Amino acid sequence: MAIEWLEGGITAVPGIMASGIAGGIKPDGKRDMALIYSPAPAVAAGVFTTNAVKSGSVKVTVEHISGGQAQAILAVSGNANSCTGDQGIQDAREMARAVGDLLRLPANHVLVGTTGVIGQPLPMEKIRGALPRLVKTLSPQGGRNAAEGIMTTDTRPKEAAIRVAVGDQTVTIGGIAKGAAMIHPHMATMLCFLATDARVEHPALQRALRVAVDRSFNRITVDGDRSTNDTVLILANGLAENSPVGSGRRGARVFQEALGTLTGQLARMIIEDAEGATKFITVTVRGARTRRDAQRVAYAVATSTLVKTALYGQDPNWGRILAAVGATGARLEEERIRLLFGDEVVVSGGVMAAPVRWERIKEHLAQREVALTVDLGLGNAAAEVWTSDLTEEYVRLNSKYTT
Amino acid sequence: MAIEWLEGGITAVPGIMASGIAGGIKPDGKRDMALIYSPAPAVAAGVFTTNAVKSGSVKVTVEHISGGQAQAILAVSGNANSCTGDQGIQDAREMARAVGDLLRLPANHVLVGTTGVIGQPLPMEKIRGALPRLVKTLSPQGGRNAAEGIMTTDTRPKEAAIRVAVGDQTVTIGGIAKGAAMIHPHMATMLCFLATDARVEHPALQRALRVAVDRSFNRITVDGDRSTNDTVLILANGLAENSPVGSGRRGARVFQEALGTLTGQLARMIIEDAEGATKFITVTVRGARTRRDAQRVAYAVATSTLVKTALYGQDPNWGRILAAVGATGARLEEERIRLLFGDEVVVSGGVMAAPVRWERIKEHLAQREVALTVDLGLGNAAAEVWTSDLTEEYVRLNSKYTT
Repeated sequence: MAIEWLEGGITAVPGIMASGIAGGIKPDGKRDMALIYSPAPAVAAGVFTTNAVKSGSVKVTVEHISGGQAQAILAVSGNANSCTGDQGIQDAREMARAVGDLLRLPANHVLVGTTGVIGQPLPMEKIRGALPRLVKTLSPQGGRNAAEGIMTTDTRPKEAAIRVAVGDQTVTIGGIAKGAAMIHPHMATMLCFLATDARVEHPALQRALRVAVDRSFNRITVDGDRSTNDTVLILANGLAENSPVGSGRRGARVFQEALGTLTGQLARMIIEDAEGATKFITVTVRGARTRRDAQRVAYAVATSTLVKTALYGQDPNWGRILAAVGATGARLEEERIRLLFGDEVVVSGGVMAAPVRWERIKEHLAQREVALTVDLGLGNAAAEVWTSDLTEEYVRLNSKYTT
Repeated sequence: MAIEWLEGGITAVPGIMASGIAGGIKPDGKRDMALIYSPAPAVAAGVFTTNAVKSGSVKVTVEHISGGQAQAILAVSGNANSCTGDQGIQDAREMARAVGDLLRLPANHVLVGTTGVIGQPLPMEKIRGALPRLVKTLSPQGGRNAAEGIMTTDTRPKEAAIRVAVGDQTVTIGGIAKGAAMIHPHMATMLCFLATDARVEHPALQRALRVAVDRSFNRITVDGDRSTNDTVLILANGLAENSPVGSGRRGARVFQEALGTLTGQLARMIIEDAEGATKFITVTVRGARTRRDAQRVAYAVATSTLVKTALYGQDPNWGRILAAVGATGARLEEERIRLLFGDEVVVSGGVMAAPVRWERIKEHLAQREVALTVDLGLGNAAAEVWTSDLTEEYVRLNSKYTT
């Protein structure tokens, strides 16, 4: 499968328009509203936070997307509309209705994503006032503005687009994303909005999105906290006129792979921009008895504050990694465990390997991209998780806010 | 039940001797070996780490204590004897045998605890050379030296003792403890050694210790990492000649309560001495459907890096707490959740309470002892966890080590 990377993000997709403006929600006057619009009818799918505490926007969007059709995504940054009770649900409904009125769409063809301060009502006065301008500035070159409009603590906008042949036609998939996990005071949420001109049947689109999320955003962790607002949405407008991608058909695999590649790239951008981070860390677990065991171990290592601080200090502290592995409850036999930093074995048979090439390990840990591999030596299941290191800067950024 | 606090720690218990010396294991020349000795035969019980990766010392001590009798506890600090394979088990056996020879005890009446660097073989040459001096310095006033001999990154020794009437007699329980969780580069372990002159039958002693640990050491968390070496041991020499405490008898409840009070105090000392900590945080969850749910929620809040950094910054960031609560998978209904800082309600019915007395909350958060209460409003189950805040100093201490 030949994937071609394109410039730009969501508006690299034919037939997709976008805009991003400053609506006065963020006190610093930065862009805080974004709109994505498909003038052609589109199939829509979504994946949402598993947190039991969900924002009003998530609740309404889950309802609206249940019909499998949508043409617009409105995003607001600076306010999460979370823990805002019934008011939050009413506000999300009102925003969808207002955008629908302006674009002549039924309200339930408008999806809503919010991110920012938790527990404060949305400034609806400002939002109402800004929506006409947001709609008026929609443009086929507006993707970058939209990517900026969803940023909270991100230091740079995140967008990506690819082109790939699906059966008889070339299709484009593009997207924008913002900040991982809950990495800022009162801020929340990973948001990712995707679009494609591929024709994809609804069940295949939902399935492809679910798998793509599992292999990208569900693999990244900054601090182990799951937001109340995480939302990934995709619109497929079918303008490429390929033979429809349906579950089980040949095109489905290609589309799936391409979508997974794109979301993988966006997920990587999120980790690279994590607060205070100096490292991109890949934790690979293999040789586990079950996939669930592999995932538990990978997450335990990737979220251990002790492992993350050690990697920040470029300290090959394998004892901490083994202790994190052992505490998971995953099935393991100590004397079978192997551990590698990069390609260098440091633990073999559960004890320190002999010899360990410490110089090479130090060189590896000094790089920006660090790889840890834990081989449990028990089976064939594997998992991979991406994370960042834990730095003084992270603590500084996350503690110095006061209301 | 009238509990009287005594000066001193483990040697406040009649018939218990202890010593602590510098055996040359720690490079800085501080005390690094400790010995506790009951000349009278004693009933013994233990609770150990649940980490699947266990030190050689833990493995041998589990074996030795299975007979329910022991008279000596040897502790070494500066080396964890963990991830050391068969050699680690052989070394632990040899240490027990050597102490047994010097004290004329069978090797399996000697228990061993180690703490410190992971993955390095014990310096057995030094240990062999130092053991005769460790035995020779045993004294009924040696508890403080023993408390110092088990320290790693602790800034102060931890010891406590109490007296309580059990049935017809007054009994004493005393103990020493060291450093919570894995809070230092390459360092590991919480150790606690207890002794009592109470006569307690073995099943009752094991049960009382298990319950006391659940209500104290199993309630504290510094960084969520469980060590490979955690060990809690108790020796009961029976010199108080009380009617034997047996399961279900009246004395059992009193003994249980007293032991839990003592271990609670030692656990509190560990949190107060956690690395870089500026706060002692009590997280209480009530109104949960099940005890397991209550515990999951309490641990999730107490281990959230975002919650812990916010409390360091004295930031009443209730959104982070709700997000941590929601992510646990515990049964909950958002609109029933109440959240308090100290006695002040900040969230009621899942949304921000009105009014919130922010001034009072800020005052509470500025204190050294901070209390968070999450009421799920669903049932009667509750849980309480103690933790510290997450500071830049913690990251600095845990990252700057290099091998």
